[in-house]
Amino acid sequence: MFKFSEYTNKISTDAISDILKYMTAPGIIAFSGGSPAKETFPVDAIKVIIDEALTKDAVSILQYGSTGGRPELKKAYIEHIAKPKGIDVSEENLITLTGSNQGIGLIADVLLNPGDTVLVESPTFLTTIMVLKKLSAKSIPVDVDKNGMKMDDLEEKIKKYSPKFIYTVPTFQNPTGLTLPTERREKIAALAEKYGVIIIEDDPYCELRYKGESLPPIKSFDKKGYVVLLSSFSKIIAPGLRVGVMAAHKDIIAKVTLAKQLDDTHSPNLNQIICAEFLNKGLLPGHIQKIIPIYAERLEAMLNAIKKYFPKEAVCTKPEGGLFVWGSLPGDVNMKDVLNRAATEEKVAFVPGAPFYLNEIDGKNSFRLNFSSNPPEIIDEGIKKLGRILTEYVD
Amino acid sequence: MFKFSEYTNKISTDAISDILKYMTAPGIIAFSGGSPAKETFPVDAIKVIIDEALTKDAVSILQYGSTGGRPELKKAYIEHIAKPKGIDVSEENLITLTGSNQGIGLIADVLLNPGDTVLVESPTFLTTIMVLKKLSAKSIPVDVDKNGMKMDDLEEKIKKYSPKFIYTVPTFQNPTGLTLPTERREKIAALAEKYGVIIIEDDPYCELRYKGESLPPIKSFDKKGYVVLLSSFSKIIAPGLRVGVMAAHKDIIAKVTLAKQLDDTHSPNLNQIICAEFLNKGLLPGHIQKIIPIYAERLEAMLNAIKKYFPKEAVCTKPEGGLFVWGSLPGDVNMKDVLNRAATEEKVAFVPGAPFYLNEIDGKNSFRLNFSSNPPEIIDEGIKKLGRILTEYVD
Repeated sequence: MFKFSEYTNKISTDAISDILKYMTAPGIIAFSGGSPAKETFPVDAIKVIIDEALTKDAVSILQYGSTGGRPELKKAYIEHIAKPKGIDVSEENLITLTGSNQGIGLIADVLLNPGDTVLVESPTFLTTIMVLKKLSAKSIPVDVDKNGMKMDDLEEKIKKYSPKFIYTVPTFQNPTGLTLPTERREKIAALAEKYGVIIIEDDPYCELRYKGESLPPIKSFDKKGYVVLLSSFSKIIAPGLRVGVMAAHKDIIAKVTLAKQLDDTHSPNLNQIICAEFLNKGLLPGHIQKIIPIYAERLEAMLNAIKKYFPKEAVCTKPEGGLFVWGSLPGDVNMKDVLNRAATEEKVAFVPGAPFYLNEIDGKNSFRLNFSSNPPEIIDEGIKKLGRILTEYVD
Repeated sequence: MFKFSEYTNKISTDAISDILKYMTAPGIIAFSGGSPAKETFPVDAIKVIIDEALTKDAVSILQYGSTGGRPELKKAYIEHIAKPKGIDVSEENLITLTGSNQGIGLIADVLLNPGDTVLVESPTFLTTIMVLKKLSAKSIPVDVDKNGMKMDDLEEKIKKYSPKFIYTVPTFQNPTGLTLPTERREKIAALAEKYGVIIIEDDPYCELRYKGESLPPIKSFDKKGYVVLLSSFSKIIAPGLRVGVMAAHKDIIAKVTLAKQLDDTHSPNLNQIICAEFLNKGLLPGHIQKIIPIYAERLEAMLNAIKKYFPKEAVCTKPEGGLFVWGSLPGDVNMKDVLNRAATEEKVAFVPGAPFYLNEIDGKNSFRLNFSSNPPEIIDEGIKKLGRILTEYVD
C-alpha cells in the first residue's frame, strides 16, 4: 500500500530478526544478544544519583538541553575516561550520543556521499554494515589475521581506494573478539595522518578485559584529529540508559552536532547526569573490578563447555575479553538452518555469522555466541545442547 | 581539513545559531526558544515514579530494550491519549521516539528518495525544512489563510505534484500559532485516502489550549492508515526526558523501526517508564489543568504588552494556545538586523522568521516570540524594550 524509499529495500531485516526471533522464546537458552549481565547493574548507585540530581538540579534536567550534551558529562569523560587513556581532548571535541550506536549513523551521514568508499574489517558490526548500505557507500574489506586488520593490506587499500574513512572495532571486536595490538594501533593512527583519512574507532568493549594488559586506544596516538572515538556506557554502566560519547576534531563535532540536531535534538539530560555522576563519584573502577570476575567466569565456562561438547571440527576463538566467542564449522553448513534446528529441537539460540560479512556468502558457516548474559551452569547446559546439534553437521 | 558530505553544506546552521546566540547571554530577556515554563515540571511525581520503577523493575529498565519501545508506554498511550482523542490504534501501530523530533527524520528517511515532492505549510517548523533539504526533497508550500492550509490549493497540489507526503503542524503551529479547524482536518484525512498520500501530523502543542474547544486530531479521521501522528511528551511532562510516540499504519511502523534500529537502537527505558506511569497514575489531566492558567496568563501578558508597546504597523497573531506569537513589520525590514540591535541595545532576543520559510526571502520581515518561558512582568518588560527597537523600523 505504501511506497517506501529505496534504502529500506536495500537493508535486510533478517539479521536482526535472527537475533531476536528465538531470544525471548519461553525456556530458551539464548547466546544471541550482546547484553551485559543483569546482575552487574549498579541499581543502588543509580537510585542515589538520580535522587541527588533531581533534588539539586531538577529544572535544568527536565528542560531542553543543548545538542552537544551536558557539560557535566563532558568534564567527567575528560577527567575519568580520556585522561587515564592518554587521550587529549577538551569539551569542544566531545558530543553526547543517545548510545554510541547513534554515533555511527551521525558520522557516516556527515562524511559520506553515495558511492564513497569505506574500509572495514570483515566480518564487522552488523549495524555499521547496514548504515553503510543505507548511505550507498562502497564498503571494502581489509584483510585480517588473528590480530585484526593487517597494516600492509590497509595501506595498500588506502592508496588504491582513497576511502572516506576506516571503521574498526579495535578491542574484542564484535563479532570475532579480535583485538588490534598496540603497534598496529600506533600504525593505523600514523596511516590516518599520512593519507589524511579518518578512522572511526568504535570501542565499547575496551574495559571488559579478563586477561592480559589494557591497550591504549588508537585515539591516544592521534595528533592531528583524524581519529573519531566512539565510547559507550552501555557495557560499563547500563545499556538501557542509552548514553555514549563521541570524541573527535572540533570541526567534525560541529557537523555531527548539526546532524544530531536534526535527529533527536539532544540526548536526555538525566541519563547523561547519571553517567557523569557515576564517574565523578569514582564508582567506575570499582564497578569494573566487580563485573570482570563475573564475565571472566562465564567466558571460561563457555570455553570449557565448547571443549567438552563441540565437535573437534568446530573452530572457535578464545578471546581475552568482550562479550563474544566466534566460531565456524567446516564445509557447506548453513548456520541459519542450524539455528532453526537448535532453537526448536534443543531450545538454544545463537546468531548466524553471515550478516556480519559484507558478502553474506562468506560467513554462512560461522556463528557468534554471547557468554555474558547467562550464568556458568546455564552456559554449560546450552553449549552441551548446541554441541549435539553441531555434531550432526560434521562428518 | 576534512571533506564533509554534500548535505552538510546544504543546511544552514544560521537558524539555530540565531535562536541560541543571545538566549543565554547574561541579563537577556529571551523570547527565542520553545521551552515549557520551568515552573511547570512535575518534579515530585517524577521522583516518586523513578523510585517505584527502579525498585520494582530495575533490571529490565537498565538492560537493552526493544527498538519499538516499552509495552507499558504503548498501553498507556492507547488508554490515556489515543482513545480519549478518538484514535483507534493498537501496539503494532506505535513506536517510541527519542523525542517526537526524531520521528520527522525517521519517517522522511523511510519515505523519501532524492527529488521526491513534499507539501508543507510555509512558514513551517524549521527542523522539518532542514530534514527535507538533507534528503534532497522538493518542498512545495501550500497556500495558508488564518485557518491553516487551504484545502482547494492542497488538493490541486496533490494532483499536480503527487507528493510523497504532506507535513502539517495542525494545532497552534510552530511558528505561526495557526490552527486547522475540524472540517479541514476531516477533509485532509479524506484527501489522503482519496489520493493515497501520507499525512505527517506533527502535534506537540495540542494540549496547550487556553481558549476555545479542543479539536480532534487528523489521525482520528484516518480510516485506512494514511496519517502518521507524532505525539510529544515534551510540552506536557518535560522535554529533557526526550520521549515522543509515533502512531501509524503497522507497515510504516515496521520500516520506521528498522530506521530507528540504525539510529539509536532504542529510546532509553527509564524515560519511557516515567511517561507511561505519569499517564497510568492519572496525573496528566490534572497537570495540564495546572499549567494552562500559567501559560494563558503569559500569553495574555504578551498580547497586552504588544498592544501597549509595539508600533501599530506590527501585525501579530493572537493564538488560542501553543507557545508562540508570530508577527511582522511592513516593508523591507531585515529581522536579523533588528535582533542584533535588540539584543545588544536592549538585551532582548527573539527568532527572526526567515528560516521558517522554504524561501527565506519571504520571511525576512517576520519574527517569532515565545511567551511560555518568562513570567508576565518580564514579558511586559521585554516587549516594551523590543517595542522601542521595532518603532525605529517603521516610518
